Amino acid sequence: MSSVITSLWWIAPIASIFALLFAVFFYKKMMAANEGNETMIEIAGHVRDGAMAYLMRQYKVVIIVFVVLLVILQALALFEIQNPFVPIAFLTGGFFSGLCGYIGMKTATAASSRTAQGCSEGLNRGLIVAFRSGAVMGLVVVGFGLLDICIWYFVLDKLVYTTEHMADGWHFLGMELVPADCSVAEKLVHMTTTMITFGMGASTQALFARVGGGIYTKAADVGADLVGKVEAGIPEDDPRNPATIADNVGDNVGDVAGMGADLYESYCGSILATAALGAAVGAHNVMNGTGTEADAIALVTAPMVVAGIGTILSIIGMFLVKCKEGASQKNLLKALLTGTLGSSILIVLALIGMWLGGMIAGGIVLAVISGLAAGVIIGQATEYYTSAEYKPTKGIADQAVMGPATTIIDGLATGMYSAGIPVITIVVGIICAFGFAGGFSDMSMGLYGIGFAAVGMLATLGITLATDAYGPIADNAGGNAEMAGLPPEVRERTDALDSLGNTTAATGKGFAIGSAALTAMALLAAYIEEVKIWIAKLAGEGSFAGFTAEQAEHAGIMDFVDAFELHIMNPLLLCGLFLGGMMAFVFCAMTMKAVGRAAGAMVEEVRRQFREIPGIMEGTGKPDYASCVAISTKGAQREMLMPSLLAIIVPVATGLILGVPGVMGLLAGGLTTGFVLATMLNNAGGAWDNAKKYVEKGAHGGKGSDAHKAAVVGDTVGDPCKDTSGPSLNILIKLMTMVSVVFTPVVVKFSPVIQDFLNIATK
Amino acid sequence: MSSVITSLWWIAPIASIFALLFAVFFYKKMMAANEGNETMIEIAGHVRDGAMAYLMRQYKVVIIVFVVLLVILQALALFEIQNPFVPIAFLTGGFFSGLCGYIGMKTATAASSRTAQGCSEGLNRGLIVAFRSGAVMGLVVVGFGLLDICIWYFVLDKLVYTTEHMADGWHFLGMELVPADCSVAEKLVHMTTTMITFGMGASTQALFARVGGGIYTKAADVGADLVGKVEAGIPEDDPRNPATIADNVGDNVGDVAGMGADLYESYCGSILATAALGAAVGAHNVMNGTGTEADAIALVTAPMVVAGIGTILSIIGMFLVKCKEGASQKNLLKALLTGTLGSSILIVLALIGMWLGGMIAGGIVLAVISGLAAGVIIGQATEYYTSAEYKPTKGIADQAVMGPATTIIDGLATGMYSAGIPVITIVVGIICAFGFAGGFSDMSMGLYGIGFAAVGMLATLGITLATDAYGPIADNAGGNAEMAGLPPEVRERTDALDSLGNTTAATGKGFAIGSAALTAMALLAAYIEEVKIWIAKLAGEGSFAGFTAEQAEHAGIMDFVDAFELHIMNPLLLCGLFLGGMMAFVFCAMTMKAVGRAAGAMVEEVRRQFREIPGIMEGTGKPDYASCVAISTKGAQREMLMPSLLAIIVPVATGLILGVPGVMGLLAGGLTTGFVLATMLNNAGGAWDNAKKYVEKGAHGGKGSDAHKAAVVGDTVGDPCKDTSGPSLNILIKLMTMVSVVFTPVVVKFSPVIQDFLNIATK
Repeated sequence: MSSVITSLWWIAPIASIFALLFAVFFYKKMMAANEGNETMIEIAGHVRDGAMAYLMRQYKVVIIVFVVLLVILQALALFEIQNPFVPIAFLTGGFFSGLCGYIGMKTATAASSRTAQGCSEGLNRGLIVAFRSGAVMGLVVVGFGLLDICIWYFVLDKLVYTTEHMADGWHFLGMELVPADCSVAEKLVHMTTTMITFGMGASTQALFARVGGGIYTKAADVGADLVGKVEAGIPEDDPRNPATIADNVGDNVGDVAGMGADLYESYCGSILATAALGAAVGAHNVMNGTGTEADAIALVTAPMVVAGIGTILSIIGMFLVKCKEGASQKNLLKALLTGTLGSSILIVLALIGMWLGGMIAGGIVLAVISGLAAGVIIGQATEYYTSAEYKPTKGIADQAVMGPATTIIDGLATGMYSAGIPVITIVVGIICAFGFAGGFSDMSMGLYGIGFAAVGMLATLGITLATDAYGPIADNAGGNAEMAGLPPEVRERTDALDSLGNTTAATGKGFAIGSAALTAMALLAAYIEEVKIWIAKLAGEGSFAGFTAEQAEHAGIMDFVDAFELHIMNPLLLCGLFLGGMMAFVFCAMTMKAVGRAAGAMVEEVRRQFREIPGIMEGTGKPDYASCVAISTKGAQREMLMPSLLAIIVPVATGLILGVPGVMGLLAGGLTTGFVLATMLNNAGGAWDNAKKYVEKGAHGGKGSDAHKAAVVGDTVGDPCKDTSGPSLNILIKLMTMVSVVFTPVVVKFSPVIQDFLNIATK
Repeated sequence: MSSVITSLWWIAPIASIFALLFAVFFYKKMMAANEGNETMIEIAGHVRDGAMAYLMRQYKVVIIVFVVLLVILQALALFEIQNPFVPIAFLTGGFFSGLCGYIGMKTATAASSRTAQGCSEGLNRGLIVAFRSGAVMGLVVVGFGLLDICIWYFVLDKLVYTTEHMADGWHFLGMELVPADCSVAEKLVHMTTTMITFGMGASTQALFARVGGGIYTKAADVGADLVGKVEAGIPEDDPRNPATIADNVGDNVGDVAGMGADLYESYCGSILATAALGAAVGAHNVMNGTGTEADAIALVTAPMVVAGIGTILSIIGMFLVKCKEGASQKNLLKALLTGTLGSSILIVLALIGMWLGGMIAGGIVLAVISGLAAGVIIGQATEYYTSAEYKPTKGIADQAVMGPATTIIDGLATGMYSAGIPVITIVVGIICAFGFAGGFSDMSMGLYGIGFAAVGMLATLGITLATDAYGPIADNAGGNAEMAGLPPEVRERTDALDSLGNTTAATGKGFAIGSAALTAMALLAAYIEEVKIWIAKLAGEGSFAGFTAEQAEHAGIMDFVDAFELHIMNPLLLCGLFLGGMMAFVFCAMTMKAVGRAAGAMVEEVRRQFREIPGIMEGTGKPDYASCVAISTKGAQREMLMPSLLAIIVPVATGLILGVPGVMGLLAGGLTTGFVLATMLNNAGGAWDNAKKYVEKGAHGGKGSDAHKAAVVGDTVGDPCKDTSGPSLNILIKLMTMVSVVFTPVVVKFSPVIQDFLNIATK
């Protein structure tokens, strides 16, 4: 890595500010658009109020959890078994992640009536309004993510680790912030492993958003469908259905806020983990005399620079998205692909240019391309398995003729099959990234390459997320048009946009889990660095300066593996693998049951309203939308706590009982099983959904046929799979790793296995 | 381990012969029982003919696969990259496993009409006939399993590794059978790693039995239910249903033959893996001078002795099973529990006696008890999650009121939850067995302890399998009584027996997967021993004598881990983990889809017969049972090939591409994910089944209500989960490990990673 790249560091903060400015620009453009007639404004208002009310209550729960965790982290910091920056890092991560969710939701709820209005003017107009509103979300996520990272880096680099502090050490409120005699290599390792902990704040916030939002949206959806569509026989989004507003709120709460918080976390996690791995490689090379301090700094700044370049190219890609009037589904998809693939191609060209200019190693460029390619392939495989254009989904629709049971069996089998290509893609991607970066001769460098693959996959997040967040906006626009009684051609246009949104949502989910897997891989490697630092610190009896060359030698990866018996035949590690696999399943079970309970309450309420409110079916009585919103809100709020706490407590408990090998097993098991299970649930759900739509378009007897009824059962089963349990697994995987990273000192200090090692190391 | 135990080795062959003699005794007793009236004999004849016809066609497919594998193994042996005994070992394993299936099936099909007749005489009479027929299966499996092991051990010990051969070496047909200057410690390592390969024959046979049988039984069941019960509205086992004979055949084919072959393999695998681990510990101790050759022999013979004692105590337990007339479900369960728990308690007492007598180490006794206890706890947890007596299954029935979708969601969630306790039990069991055996100070000894936990869990297999195989016999007796039009009180009695059979089937499945997990753990450890031997052999340039002390040192577990980077951060290993997780899911998908396709053909055929055969519904036209049997047979035969080949090809391919780390990852990932997934599928299926029965007994409106229809959907979805995909995973896990063991030399010779190590090792 050339040190020229360090001089390009300014690209990252500039890009992040650019992203935020363009977010404001797109937001203003959207807000300036015609909001439609009074009914449309009123309906949009209901949805916005419901969404904001939910968000506020979610934040209340999150704040309580944050306060508790903050007290624990602060106490640990005071007892010197935690880095004093961690509590602040934890808070900022949580704050920015929550802010992204808030802005994304505010934009999305404002955009629905404007998109509906846009569609009444023309298809391209509707697409532009919806897509640019989605772009606000995409840009806010990458903008705040990168800005947060840059501010931390700047503050630590320029204000904390000053030349003076590094020579004399620096204490603040009795806590040691900078050890005396701190070298540049040490500084980088400390800085990056400090910064990484802000990911735990983001992760925690994201988990609540994904789980809570997922429960909310599916409780409302299942409730609205089971009573409204199936029992009362009224169409989707019919204003007579009391749960219809809650259903529209749910789209925003789950798909916009949840997805945004999830990817914010992956985005930051991938950059920070790669920086931490870079710092480890750099420090090692400096100690061995095979690298300079400037090289080490370049290894740390490189991922930020690549992310910055990706952000700028994403913005350029956004301006490529447009379509002609009367465009077909294929044209629409092509319009979006022009944007996303265009950005990807641009970034590859930019990287090749940097390589030719000698700024970045060719191996790293190839690693980034491995990640990008893996993202594209997983997206395409997801589309193949979930779109009604292809055999698998059509096969499910065929089975619907025989009844609901065969529909479910075939959907489950399709979901299981669909894990094949993504797993092979990730495996090939990992090995390529590792090998290209030189991992087969220098393992640490290979892990750095895997980190860069994650950065590569997420480099174009700005625009990928825009195509994702666009989906629920189009969906809500359709709801708005239906409820406001707009003419059928408007609904046709919103349906065209919505249908496209379903495809991008499925590929987006594949992308989200793929990037989560690569990020978690990088975090897993970074976890080892964290453990090494704390061993050094605690072995040096309470001093950061204990990170001597000798101890660093002790902490070299292979020695580390020996010392902790981090090998596959260590039963503690194998037991961790079992526990990790189990965690993925039990976590899914909890979120699924939660949806069931919340949906049950919703069904009761909708039935009650149909029974008790006179004239509701004739359209003369007004349904009580607010009480349905309140039920979903309360259900989500109550049900999200347990699974979230589990994700935080289990890694710490495993560490204390089984030690570092147990934690490594838990994380590896959770990662691999979670990835496969999430892929299965997402794709089965998507395929059932589209099989139903395929039947509704006329196959096997169309709407109202027995095949349709069976397909609706499949769709209902798929709902919690694809929108609650599956996506929540992304965060479970990352959060467990983040928690392990943050609570490393606790495990290192109190785990019996580690104690043994310390006894040896301090002898 | 005291060498006294070696002098007790004769217990093992004696016990195996005892088991076979008692099998003959029970078989004759059963055959002497009254076969019932002419209709009953005729119906039983149809089922027997169908079952035997299926078995013969299955054997034809299996023989082709065996011939191909045999040619490959023989070719490898001739090129000296395979042990020359392996082809013969492979054959005998397959032969005995197939023989067990054949005898079990012959007994079961002969017992159904006799059990029905017994039930018309009294409940106790029926129970005794059914249980003793099941006992034939249990005793045949442990008898042949132990006999096969003993014969191999005797032949190798007394005829191949003679003092003379060990001194001068022994060649036969140009292949080196015994290396010159072979020490006793080397001899034991070679003998046990040779013997272990006969597990691959058993595994391959078992996979075909489980997968083929599973597809057969569920295709027939789903076909019979969907058209007969749901469309035509006729009861279960009604003679007017053309698929009813195929359904009854399926119970035998899937549950008797499949389960028998599966557990035969676990039983042999656990004993052989433990013996191999014992030989490794012994050899190591001899080289270090910390143990004698007599100790080494004792470590190898101990698992055989314990298995022999367990077999004898199982036979005693069988005579404890009896009940009073008019016994309730609880009494019946107690009757069986007296037998199984009685045997377990006896074996614990025997082991404590041996420990007090100084024959066996206390740590090993505790390891065995860990395994036994884990088996009992997993069984109880399975009952809790699948019996309608408890909350989870009742909860599914409650959801049935809201329709099929919520029934499915709740069942999936219940299945996922239910993985929790079994995983924690296995984890605690593994750590206890490892720790008690002294693993925290001597890792190899700890792994030997884990092997003994598996032996402990399977020690009472004779009687556990009897209670398992009894289920389908009682089920078939019910079918026989229904079709022969016996008086209702007979059907009531067979129903009581059948209902008990459902409980034992569920706990039996938990037991099967639990023992498969422990056995696979032991095999995984034994795999490493196999790799070490082949490294030594190939490093010694083609000579077994290359197994020098220096190379043994090289091959010590920690060096081995270093050399192959068998640690969790090696991306090749992590990629293996991903692939292992994926294999479990894709394998399930294949078997599920296979059931779907075969069931579809069956549905068509049954519909055709109802349409085309005049008077079939009035009972005047005779349905064509044989064509339904033929369809299931053909479907199973065609569909079982692909998943089975996958299980054989993937480990070899992974080894050639990713090397030993990739294989270890694949096996560990397949083991952990497979265990969790199998538990989920088995328990979800069992819970759906019993929720349906609970509704049929009158809950939520009883038979014919909407809740019942929803519960039937759940049951149908659960069928392939619990009877095809879930149980097949047991064998997938074990077979992949077995294939890896057998193809070790190919991987060692051709894998690039290994080549590198060889270059280092031979320098």
